[in-house]
Amino acid sequence: MAQRYQILKPDWILTVDADFAVLRDAALVIADNRIDALLDAGEIAELDCFAGADIVELPGRVLLPGFVNSHTHASMSLFRGLADDLPLMEWLTEHIWPAEARWVGPEFTADGLRLAAAEMIRGGTTCLNDMFYFPDEVARTLQAVGMRGVVGLIVLDFPSAWAQDADEYLHKALAVHDEIRELPLIDSALAPHAPYTVSDEPLRKVAMYSNELDIPVHMHVHETAGEVAEAEQKTGRRPLERLDQLGLVNPSLIAVHMTELNPLEIERVAEAGVNVAHCPESNLKLASGICPLAALLAQDVNVCLGTDGAASNNDLDLLGEMRTASLLAKGASGDARACTARQAIEMATINGARALALGDRIGSIEAGKLADLVAIDLRAANTQPVYDPVAQVAYAAAASQVSDVWIDGVPQLREYELCHLDQAEIVARARAWANRIESAR
Amino acid sequence: MAQRYQILKPDWILTVDADFAVLRDAALVIADNRIDALLDAGEIAELDCFAGADIVELPGRVLLPGFVNSHTHASMSLFRGLADDLPLMEWLTEHIWPAEARWVGPEFTADGLRLAAAEMIRGGTTCLNDMFYFPDEVARTLQAVGMRGVVGLIVLDFPSAWAQDADEYLHKALAVHDEIRELPLIDSALAPHAPYTVSDEPLRKVAMYSNELDIPVHMHVHETAGEVAEAEQKTGRRPLERLDQLGLVNPSLIAVHMTELNPLEIERVAEAGVNVAHCPESNLKLASGICPLAALLAQDVNVCLGTDGAASNNDLDLLGEMRTASLLAKGASGDARACTARQAIEMATINGARALALGDRIGSIEAGKLADLVAIDLRAANTQPVYDPVAQVAYAAAASQVSDVWIDGVPQLREYELCHLDQAEIVARARAWANRIESAR
Repeated sequence: MAQRYQILKPDWILTVDADFAVLRDAALVIADNRIDALLDAGEIAELDCFAGADIVELPGRVLLPGFVNSHTHASMSLFRGLADDLPLMEWLTEHIWPAEARWVGPEFTADGLRLAAAEMIRGGTTCLNDMFYFPDEVARTLQAVGMRGVVGLIVLDFPSAWAQDADEYLHKALAVHDEIRELPLIDSALAPHAPYTVSDEPLRKVAMYSNELDIPVHMHVHETAGEVAEAEQKTGRRPLERLDQLGLVNPSLIAVHMTELNPLEIERVAEAGVNVAHCPESNLKLASGICPLAALLAQDVNVCLGTDGAASNNDLDLLGEMRTASLLAKGASGDARACTARQAIEMATINGARALALGDRIGSIEAGKLADLVAIDLRAANTQPVYDPVAQVAYAAAASQVSDVWIDGVPQLREYELCHLDQAEIVARARAWANRIESAR
Repeated sequence: MAQRYQILKPDWILTVDADFAVLRDAALVIADNRIDALLDAGEIAELDCFAGADIVELPGRVLLPGFVNSHTHASMSLFRGLADDLPLMEWLTEHIWPAEARWVGPEFTADGLRLAAAEMIRGGTTCLNDMFYFPDEVARTLQAVGMRGVVGLIVLDFPSAWAQDADEYLHKALAVHDEIRELPLIDSALAPHAPYTVSDEPLRKVAMYSNELDIPVHMHVHETAGEVAEAEQKTGRRPLERLDQLGLVNPSLIAVHMTELNPLEIERVAEAGVNVAHCPESNLKLASGICPLAALLAQDVNVCLGTDGAASNNDLDLLGEMRTASLLAKGASGDARACTARQAIEMATINGARALALGDRIGSIEAGKLADLVAIDLRAANTQPVYDPVAQVAYAAAASQVSDVWIDGVPQLREYELCHLDQAEIVARARAWANRIESAR
C-alpha cells in the first residue's frame, strides 16, 4: 500500500534533538505514522516523491514534539475542585479516598479519562503516564481515543473497587499487562502506589516483574517531609533507602514528586539512573514540599514533568507546568539561570519519553521517530513580538494557543477543533457525575 | 438623557463583596457606566423600567469584578523574550536599561502599551497600575484605548529619555498630574523607582506631594535580599526603615515586591496600612526571592497582585498570577490552607482597587460601583465539572476563557472579540519594533 504523506509547514521547528536545533521555515514530512524527513523550504518544491501529500500550512506556528505528561491520574478530572486548600494527607484520607471508594468503577474511569484526554490534547499532550484503578479500562479508552499512554498497573496493600489485597493487585497487573500488549498506542508500567501503601513482599515482586517484563516502575516517592519522617521513625530507614534494598532504585524507576531529598540521595539517584517525575503545581498546592530541581538537573538526572491529577493541580496543562517548573527552580534555588527555557521544554518532551522507556520512539522531532507533534500559534498578543520562539513557548504561550496536534501521525486537533472526541458529550457525562457526587455529599 | 441599560445574565456572579457572596442565576443591571442593581432571575421579568435594555446572555459564564494589575510596566511588552534566564541586576543593567536608553520614546511607549492592553483586556484585566517613562503618553493612550489606569509619575536620580535629573522628573510629574486630571479613566500616582535609584531629597518631596495631592506612591521596595544587604552596608539602615524616616510608610504606599521582610517589618507594614503589590512570577523568574504572602495575609496586610512587565514574567495574565500566588504561598509556607481561592481572587480585584485608592469605585460587584466586569466561560474541558466556581476561577481557568469584558460600562471584549482595538495593526507595529531592535543587536 502506498504511504500516506503529510507535509507540515510551520514558521519554526523546535526539534528537541541533542543539539536542540531550532529550524526556521523548514518543513516536516510525515509518512504514515512516522517522521520521514526534515526539509528546508527550497527542497520541498524540487521533490516529486511526495505527490498527493497533504500540505498543512501552519503560519505563525512553532512545531514541537508532543508533550509527555509523566505523572497523572487522568480519571480524577471528575474530582476537579471537589476539595481545595487542604494538605495532602487530609485531602487524601478525608476527601479523595472516600470519594474514590464510593464512585470509582470502569465507567467513572473511562468518563474521567475522556474528559482529561480532551483537555490534554487541546493543550498539546500526546502521551501520558497514568496511575489509576481499572488500568484495563484506561488502556482500552486511551487506544479508542487515539492517545499514546503508559498505563500504570496499580499495586496497593489495601482494598479498592479494583482489587482486595496486594496479591490480587499483582495478579491483575500481570493479566492486564498481557491483555493490553496488542494495543499499538499503549505500554504498561508497574505502579506500586507509594512506599507507605505497599509493603516489602509485593515490592520485591514488583522489582522482579519489572526486570522480567522489562517495563518501568511508576511510584510516588518522598512526596512530603512527613512521609519520610514517619518512615524513619517506624523503620529507621528513609523510603528511598528501603526501595534501594528492595532492588527498585534503577533506570526503570519513575520516582514521582521527590520533594524531600538530601545530597546523598540526589547523588544516589543520579548514579542509579533513576527518572524523577516532577509535579511542581500539585506539590505547591498540597504544600507537599519543593523538589530540588536545580540540584537534580546539575547532576544530570533525567527529570520529566507531570501534572498529577486535576484534583490537586487543578488542570492538566504541560505548558503551564513547564513554566511553573522553570520559575520555581529559579526562585527556590536563588539562581535565575536554573532550569532554562530549553531545559523546561526538554523535561516536557524528550526527558518524559526517556523516563517511559519510549525515548527511541517519541520525544523529539527526528527522522524515524513516531509523529507525535504539536503546533503552537505564537501570533496571539501575549506571545508577540517573537525574539526567541524557545522563550515564548516556555514562558509566555498558553494551552489555548495549541492549534494542531498529531498522535502517531493521526491529526487529533486541527485548527483548534478536536478531530475525534465529542467534547459536548464528554462534558455532559462529566456533569452527570458531578451532580451525582454533589447530591450525595 | 435616558439611561442606557445593559442586563447581564451569567450562571454565577462572584460579587467579591465583604461576605464574598456567590450568586447563582442572578442578573446584573448596568446603567450607563455603573452597576445599578443585582436581581434574582425572577425579578427581571417583573420589572419594566429596563425596557429597551440590552440583554446579554452569558451561559456557562461566571461574572467577576475586572482584574486590577497592581504593578506593571505595560510598554515593556515590546521587550518580551529579549533576555531570559538572568538574575535581576544583570538583566536590568546589561539588557533592559541599555535597551530602554536606546529605544524608549513616546511612540515606543504608546505601541508597547497598546500591545499590553490587547493582552490584558483579553485576560480580564480592566485596570492597571503602571510605571514607565512618558507617563503623559501612557495616560492618553490608556484613555484612548478605554482602559482604566493609575499612571506612575516616575522619579529617578539618573537621566533617561524622559528627564535628566530628580528635579526634572519631579517637575514633569507635577505637570503630567495636572495635564491628565481631566481624563475620566485615569488617575495618577507618584512613582519613585526604588530606594536604590532615588535619593533622600527627591523622596522627601515625593512624600510631601503625595500628601498634598492625595495620590498614592508606587515604588519597588525590598525586591531582593541583595538590595537590602547593600543598603545596610552603605547606610546602616534597611530600605524600609529609611522610607519610614522619610515619611513614606503609610496607607498611600504601594510597596512592590517585598520579598525580603523580617517579622518586625511585617508588623510595621501591617500597622502602617502599607499596601503590598505581590508579583510572584517576576520574582521567581528573576530569582529575586519569595514574598512572605502567608504571613502578610495573616496580619491582614492589603496584598494585591501585579504581573510586573512582560520582559520578566513573560505574560500579563492576572488569572495566572492569582494561581501562582496561591500555589506559591502554600508551598513556601508549608500550609495548604494559606492563600485560599477566595483570597487569591480578592487580591486580584478588591485589594488592588484599595491599594490604588479606587476601592470605593471598583473592585467588587456592588450597586453604585463602576461597571468594570469580566465574564469567564467555564464550559471548557479544563474547567469541568464545576463543583465550585470560586475554585475553578482561581485554580483552573485560563485567560483564553475570558469571553467578555466591560470597562466603565463599555464592552471592550464581546464573545472573545476585541471591540475597539485593532489587534492585527498592534501586532504589526510590535513586530516592526522587534525587527529594529533585533537588527541593532
